[in-house]
Amino acid sequence: MTSPLKLGVAGLGTVGAGLLQIVEKHAGLLSARSGREIVVTAVNARDRSKDRGVDLSGYTWEDSPASLAASSEIDVFVELMGGEDDPALSAVQTALKAGKHVVTANKALLAMHGTGLARLAEDNGVALNFEAAVAGGIPIVKSIRESATANQVSRVFGIMNGTCNFILTKMRNEERDFGDVLKEAQQLGYAEADPSFDIGGFDAAHKLAILTSLAFGCEIDFSAIYVEGIEKIVLQDIKAANDLGYKIKLLGVAVETEDGIEQRVHPTLVPMGSNIAEVDGVFNAVGLEGDFVGNLMLEGAGAGAGPTASAVMADIVDIARGNVVPPLGLPAANLKPYKKAQMRAHEGGYFIALELFDRPGEVAAVAQCMADFGISLESIMQHTSYADSSAADRKTAPFIIITHDTLEKDVREALEKIEKGGHLASTPRMIRIERF
Amino acid sequence: MTSPLKLGVAGLGTVGAGLLQIVEKHAGLLSARSGREIVVTAVNARDRSKDRGVDLSGYTWEDSPASLAASSEIDVFVELMGGEDDPALSAVQTALKAGKHVVTANKALLAMHGTGLARLAEDNGVALNFEAAVAGGIPIVKSIRESATANQVSRVFGIMNGTCNFILTKMRNEERDFGDVLKEAQQLGYAEADPSFDIGGFDAAHKLAILTSLAFGCEIDFSAIYVEGIEKIVLQDIKAANDLGYKIKLLGVAVETEDGIEQRVHPTLVPMGSNIAEVDGVFNAVGLEGDFVGNLMLEGAGAGAGPTASAVMADIVDIARGNVVPPLGLPAANLKPYKKAQMRAHEGGYFIALELFDRPGEVAAVAQCMADFGISLESIMQHTSYADSSAADRKTAPFIIITHDTLEKDVREALEKIEKGGHLASTPRMIRIERF
Repeated sequence: MTSPLKLGVAGLGTVGAGLLQIVEKHAGLLSARSGREIVVTAVNARDRSKDRGVDLSGYTWEDSPASLAASSEIDVFVELMGGEDDPALSAVQTALKAGKHVVTANKALLAMHGTGLARLAEDNGVALNFEAAVAGGIPIVKSIRESATANQVSRVFGIMNGTCNFILTKMRNEERDFGDVLKEAQQLGYAEADPSFDIGGFDAAHKLAILTSLAFGCEIDFSAIYVEGIEKIVLQDIKAANDLGYKIKLLGVAVETEDGIEQRVHPTLVPMGSNIAEVDGVFNAVGLEGDFVGNLMLEGAGAGAGPTASAVMADIVDIARGNVVPPLGLPAANLKPYKKAQMRAHEGGYFIALELFDRPGEVAAVAQCMADFGISLESIMQHTSYADSSAADRKTAPFIIITHDTLEKDVREALEKIEKGGHLASTPRMIRIERF
Repeated sequence: MTSPLKLGVAGLGTVGAGLLQIVEKHAGLLSARSGREIVVTAVNARDRSKDRGVDLSGYTWEDSPASLAASSEIDVFVELMGGEDDPALSAVQTALKAGKHVVTANKALLAMHGTGLARLAEDNGVALNFEAAVAGGIPIVKSIRESATANQVSRVFGIMNGTCNFILTKMRNEERDFGDVLKEAQQLGYAEADPSFDIGGFDAAHKLAILTSLAFGCEIDFSAIYVEGIEKIVLQDIKAANDLGYKIKLLGVAVETEDGIEQRVHPTLVPMGSNIAEVDGVFNAVGLEGDFVGNLMLEGAGAGAGPTASAVMADIVDIARGNVVPPLGLPAANLKPYKKAQMRAHEGGYFIALELFDRPGEVAAVAQCMADFGISLESIMQHTSYADSSAADRKTAPFIIITHDTLEKDVREALEKIEKGGHLASTPRMIRIERF
């Protein structure tokens, strides 16, 4: 058996503490599976005195992430601090330049600096592993990087934010409003006091940026992602979607089109009976479509100390076994520049909810406007159960449309024209449909 | 870039032809991802003249699998012949002893000889990879061997035979009988002319034997698996299960108990709403439960040329990248001997369908007998819709029971006593329930 693999752990929040628990509980299992001992030698965190439920006395305490990253006592720098810039960024760079392997759960860091860090790792002949950064315990990074290697991927998609999935699931199952369920999610610890990062779709977008690069062999470009959160989803739309055979999920989707790669995070109608539609509660799932493997979907816990630390440790075991692959699947120098497909050129189905004035000719006017833009309608529903409680006072009627596949540009322009035409008592709502 | 990785492919059925298509279509992608070219240099199959839709003229034709395995022209022996014994077995042994890596899709071979072959591969410092042997395109072997490494696994389970899942799905959705749907499956090519290997559960058992070893770090023991097929599943039971909130699936399950490891393949009631219950048609899915990662499930195509060849090629890319792990996750010498838990000691819920004579006192007698064996009942249903068409003539009534968790021994003995007591017009049917 070779010498022990020595870890330096920066960041001792729930995931860091979970990792130390794994090292403690499964020391024998890990060394049997890795062919060498895996030991923590040094740690760093913001607060040395905090009780984390784990004994730190056996580890060297380093005063800064950077000094830990440079320490001659460690082989692997495990970055569990989070944050897209310093101190995480410079600590990871320091470690890579010092020839140390890096394992990180930091999706923000990778979404912003992933391509450069991958190149730095390759230049220094070390691993940069980040299974835990995308969908927690679900091994989607490895599955794309090492299991889908024989495929040209055409689409990768997923439910990658447990907070949003919890809220949307509860709204549907318990017929409750967004604000009400958000409050409960906060009380349960599933949502932050300031929830905007999760419900605004940005957390899912960080993960999608990484998956896109892995799936399509392009550089990471977070700024190119179209992001729309779930804040504007109302219960009536969830009910209407349900009656039409759909659930609403916050999906991240990357798909290759003729114009480039679409990267988008938005509330999405997914057909009931598709496997992604059945992923409820805080669970995450990621699917991919490859030209040989067909459809593949992985489902599991997308967050939490145990699942996330499990993914971090899997990355460490890979290093202990001597298995190093290019961080983004291809050597970073061979990644294509990211070519963005515009959202206005997106083609798909749309769910449109309009609040029409309840008077003759309005439906005809709206339908005619849709036709003028070449938009063909798959379903139309007009029923008071899809109205909010104040609609009766406004003498309006809810009008729900599902379109056949059409260009986003046309839908936007048609809705703008309908709104300007004075047919609507409130702003139209539009939710994209994803076919599976 | 290092020298090309040279493949020798034995067996040119649909999977072999699929592999050659991948090599042809994705040569550039594969070499970019692997860091070296991947080329086929030699092949062997039973019939040289058969048209496989791929051009073989560029490859050396070897006259036997053994001569291909020994050929100095190849680095990797790709075994796609199938069959648990020779010629596959000796060809694989020849290749390993000659220091060649082996990639195989042969579940029967591994179920019978896997532990010994793993040891042989390790002794010769080469890879023995077999992602395609379990659930086709689903990367479950890698996920257990490389992604769940930080976990003690408590249960691994799955729908691992597409033929059975297709038949059970059709029976339920179209309210058709077993024989009728089997015929359709045969016409569609989803079932063999002699379907007993699939519908008898043996194919799923081969796969389970391999997963058990990977998940629990024990030697492979196919002979220890309890196997029950789907031949005796009747439409009435599918309907009754449905009304009680369950679907019937052919599941393979391995679980660690106090007595040892249970390995079993049998028709199983799974609760509707659980993700495994939603896996319909020819799709496969495998789940695992680990002490840190929690529940993880992978779903995809379990068979077919494309998905299976994709898995074979992923194994080859691992070798091209220089990544070799112990075939069964642990060095073969460290695998525990398999310790079998007896089926009679299995504890779980049971679905029991009885055909009682329609006369006073029969229900009471049956209920009393269950009570005598300490079996507690969760649900009872008596309804003529669960009877087959001939029951009216026999003056009998169907009686469906769902038990709380109980010992298999007690259920078997209670049913034996009830049968001997003359309460039943036909043999009782018993289907195990799996909780998720």
